[in-house]
Amino acid sequence: MSSQNFKIAVFPGSFDPFTIGHESVVNRALYIFDRVIIGIGQNTTKTAYFPIEKRIEWIRKVFDHIQDKVEVKSFRGLTVDFCRSENARYILRGLRTASDFEYERAIAQTNKAMYPEIETVFLLTLPQHTYINSSVIREIIRQGGDASRFLPQDYKITV
Amino acid sequence: MSSQNFKIAVFPGSFDPFTIGHESVVNRALYIFDRVIIGIGQNTTKTAYFPIEKRIEWIRKVFDHIQDKVEVKSFRGLTVDFCRSENARYILRGLRTASDFEYERAIAQTNKAMYPEIETVFLLTLPQHTYINSSVIREIIRQGGDASRFLPQDYKITV
Amino acid sequence: MSSQNFKIAVFPGSFDPFTIGHESVVNRALYIFDRVIIGIGQNTTKTAYFPIEKRIEWIRKVFDHIQDKVEVKSFRGLTVDFCRSENARYILRGLRTASDFEYERAIAQTNKAMYPEIETVFLLTLPQHTYINSSVIREIIRQGGDASRFLPQDYKITV
Amino acid sequence: MSSQNFKIAVFPGSFDPFTIGHESVVNRALYIFDRVIIGIGQNTTKTAYFPIEKRIEWIRKVFDHIQDKVEVKSFRGLTVDFCRSENARYILRGLRTASDFEYERAIAQTNKAMYPEIETVFLLTLPQHTYINSSVIREIIRQGGDASRFLPQDYKITV
Amino acid sequence: MSSQNFKIAVFPGSFDPFTIGHESVVNRALYIFDRVIIGIGQNTTKTAYFPIEKRIEWIRKVFDHIQDKVEVKSFRGLTVDFCRSENARYILRGLRTASDFEYERAIAQTNKAMYPEIETVFLLTLPQHTYINSSVIREIIRQGGDASRFLPQDYKITV
Amino acid sequence: MSSQNFKIAVFPGSFDPFTIGHESVVNRALYIFDRVIIGIGQNTTKTAYFPIEKRIEWIRKVFDHIQDKVEVKSFRGLTVDFCRSENARYILRGLRTASDFEYERAIAQTNKAMYPEIETVFLLTLPQHTYINSSVIREIIRQGGDASRFLPQDYKITV
Repeated sequence: MSSQNFKIAVFPGSFDPFTIGHESVVNRALYIFDRVIIGIGQNTTKTAYFPIEKRIEWIRKVFDHIQDKVEVKSFRGLTVDFCRSENARYILRGLRTASDFEYERAIAQTNKAMYPEIETVFLLTLPQHTYINSSVIREIIRQGGDASRFLPQDYKITV
Repeated sequence: MSSQNFKIAVFPGSFDPFTIGHESVVNRALYIFDRVIIGIGQNTTKTAYFPIEKRIEWIRKVFDHIQDKVEVKSFRGLTVDFCRSENARYILRGLRTASDFEYERAIAQTNKAMYPEIETVFLLTLPQHTYINSSVIREIIRQGGDASRFLPQDYKITV
Repeated sequence: MSSQNFKIAVFPGSFDPFTIGHESVVNRALYIFDRVIIGIGQNTTKTAYFPIEKRIEWIRKVFDHIQDKVEVKSFRGLTVDFCRSENARYILRGLRTASDFEYERAIAQTNKAMYPEIETVFLLTLPQHTYINSSVIREIIRQGGDASRFLPQDYKITV
Repeated sequence: MSSQNFKIAVFPGSFDPFTIGHESVVNRALYIFDRVIIGIGQNTTKTAYFPIEKRIEWIRKVFDHIQDKVEVKSFRGLTVDFCRSENARYILRGLRTASDFEYERAIAQTNKAMYPEIETVFLLTLPQHTYINSSVIREIIRQGGDASRFLPQDYKITV
Repeated sequence: MSSQNFKIAVFPGSFDPFTIGHESVVNRALYIFDRVIIGIGQNTTKTAYFPIEKRIEWIRKVFDHIQDKVEVKSFRGLTVDFCRSENARYILRGLRTASDFEYERAIAQTNKAMYPEIETVFLLTLPQHTYINSSVIREIIRQGGDASRFLPQDYKITV
Repeated sequence: MSSQNFKIAVFPGSFDPFTIGHESVVNRALYIFDRVIIGIGQNTTKTAYFPIEKRIEWIRKVFDHIQDKVEVKSFRGLTVDFCRSENARYILRGLRTASDFEYERAIAQTNKAMYPEIETVFLLTLPQHTYINSSVIREIIRQGGDASRFLPQDYKITV
């Protein structure tokens, strides 16, 4: 297969934490792309709850058996610049709700204005994952609740 | 009436401050539930504008004449754990707008995943209350404006 | 229990057809209300796909084992007038999506303007039922597809 | 390239008429899929404004120069059955607005329930195409207005 | 005042029937525009419930005391062509809900594409009018209910 | 022209930064109002990214050629109090998306409750500006990206 046809997608996010919803999006995206790079953006203004090193380590474990297809990296700066540096022409995003959609559309159209060759490709979360979002899960963990049902089987939060 | 039929609902929120919209939801819910417990959640991350003791005191005054039906309590931890500890099988929430709805749906479905016996029951705010929300009112007060028209008659902010 | 405390809710709709989403809403509502009357409105302008007699018959079979708690009736005229004639002070509705919500809010607030004692009580559909709606199912059946997974187990479409 | 890697997507719709928004979605999808089949569904209940033969002919002219990559076909029955018969594992859809999104999500999740291997892939319309939709354009044409700016350059409506 | 500064707005709709929400929008718009022309579009595809002559007559009665400022006319063809023929550079619309908004945005942006000098100006309906819409009111009247509370005081439906 | 007919609108916001979307709204509003006052609110709780003096200076440069029609001022306290002090009976706002709309509606209806003579007038952003919002642009600048395409030609960020 020529390199031109080798399709690399960046799946950007803070993944604080990475959920079964995210996992499902990545797994289904592998039927479309040859490689998915999970890109953990290090936002200059928001402080993450879980340390970046831990998030990388925990997500890598989830995709350990398909390391050739799923990479996990962190990045600073603009998502489009990270895509360029990785030769990725696709940004992968999951869509859950209508308000999600409007936010995602603004980001995707801004990215396309800055890097016209980029294409954001959206998959839906599965019906049973629609309500699962990282900020609610984070709050459960903060309050001492058990959030394991919302996390991938191999994703172990170890502090 | 057997205790099994005695219906207790928790109305959770930060009520920072409690508005005429909240008051109307509680009053109408009393036609559905036998007791409503207004549960003021003490969020670990967000700092409230009004002190928790004051909010409890002010809301209690509003329902002073029906203390046997409306209790006011604060809680720490997960809402579902508070419900369990109060033997409440219902969570009461008011719905104002479509974006409200999507947020409420995520919370309610997360709660049901963690405590399947719980049922979140939604009432609409009245048309004339639809635009009233605590964060806008808080900002009015902060800016020195008069917000009394948005607060229950017996709810006196005393600082 | 005095009659005043006996809570009757009308669950209005065209149920063309009745889905597992509707079934779940009725079953969960029985923890809140003493009786649920499934009211099939006979709209003057829209023609239903399935005959009214069949819809009544099929839905009755679903709740055959709890006939004392779930009634199935058809009605003409306004929903609020049907509620009055049944001594029902509650209208039960399931909420699926944000656009659903806006439509439901308009109907509920119109009903309350015409009959102030009525209260519309909303339950959420379960996450796995959120996408299920009668018009899509009707189209599947029309196209000769198998829609049984979206219908209650005891709901048999017999033509 | 093995047949397993040959990615066929169906782009279903009524295309009554086909707009520059649709054209842009197809063109950008060709960077993701090896072939896009534009599938014009013949709905049993809604009557189209433009005849099916004409719609096929007009759309074919738009993609005349890339016939090996873009096919135009009409179909009856379920979209998922058409996908199966075409060995297509992807459904392609463009997203314009939040209310679009909710409708698309219901359809896509219903399709996945009936054919779990199918994946619906969403691209955004470009900002300048967001407001363009077939029903508004149809109304312009009906009223005798000039809608050519909303149609692909090679799409000539000839009646 | 020069004719250039004389601001004429068209308020287009089917007004089937005209509601207190519409009345409030027109009255408040008179603080912005010098004349408002209520333009009743005669859609080629949808049949109205109330005859066009009656709708004109009933609306005229509402604004009888300010005939110099509010005109009522019917039109065929595109709204932008009607605006041109009336020397109106403004289209007036009321906004009620988020799903309203998306529909209105598509229409307004289409109109601007076809007539760049036109500007659509939006006013909000009042909180207590947000749920009032013509199709629900029409259904109430059809079912024999009393809809007078939703209609302007001087708007008498006489059949 | 009598002073009564002289229409002054306040365009409130934080403009952190001012975008081409804002510029377009102001320019189009000048066909409706005689003067537009761009009012930069100094929020007590949120800290702006760009200093207030700079934002005033930069926006003034954009409207330098029409200083008699567009003023730039900062204000503290409630927007309605600023409007009163400026003899402005109109608040001007641009609408981009459905979630924007719900937020804007709450603010506008709160303002009207506090100052019934005020009218909020909404214009749409142009299709090609819909996705442009200050917080995304701010993030681009923070990350060292080039955001000049989203800013007015005469708006130079100089730090």
